[in-house]
Amino acid sequence: MVKKLKLDDNGLIPAIVQDAVSGQVLRLGYMNKESLELTLSSGEVWFYSRSRKQLWHKGATSGNRLVVSELWLDCDRDTVLVKAQPTGPVCHTGQRSCFFQRLTKEDIS
Amino acid sequence: MVKKLKLDDNGLIPAIVQDAVSGQVLRLGYMNKESLELTLSSGEVWFYSRSRKQLWHKGATSGNRLVVSELWLDCDRDTVLVKAQPTGPVCHTGQRSCFFQRLTKEDIS
Repeated sequence: MVKKLKLDDNGLIPAIVQDAVSGQVLRLGYMNKESLELTLSSGEVWFYSRSRKQLWHKGATSGNRLVVSELWLDCDRDTVLVKAQPTGPVCHTGQRSCFFQRLTKEDIS
Repeated sequence: MVKKLKLDDNGLIPAIVQDAVSGQVLRLGYMNKESLELTLSSGEVWFYSRSRKQLWHKGATSGNRLVVSELWLDCDRDTVLVKAQPTGPVCHTGQRSCFFQRLTKEDIS
């Protein structure tokens, strides 16, 4: 059976990045076919930046790269799970993970 | 400072669900404002089903609910991380997690 990825209307698929060692969820990024191919072939995470509308080798500027340990696909084939080892803080704020704020009732009011 | 959620053009925000105890990533779902409010007020995960175009109390039919432990928001405020305790398999296939298939080169060719 040929498994096919389901990309969204913009040709993107969300990619959850999880620390391969600690299990901490680090960020959600988006990939297109080319960034998936680059991630597979290079062993480092490449995203597609929706704001800059271009391929983004995570860490190319900051030095904080993500070294791939495992790539998983969900049952619907529309989400990727990347288990990776970060070489530095993943978040642009300098935090280890982008998820450092609690969500409260005030956030959705 | 008032933190505001960033919903997408369809009024949705992706929500990563992680097992609060084991750290396993279980699935990616989507929430709208109402499902977020219901998740916060009920302590169980409510999604918005994009295919059925309706609110979805996870486990209402299957019995496999997700009891919320913690809710986190990412730095960009456009992704939610739900740490939850599942009362049964999260995936409709009966698997504990929706991510049970390895992603390989063949998937993107």
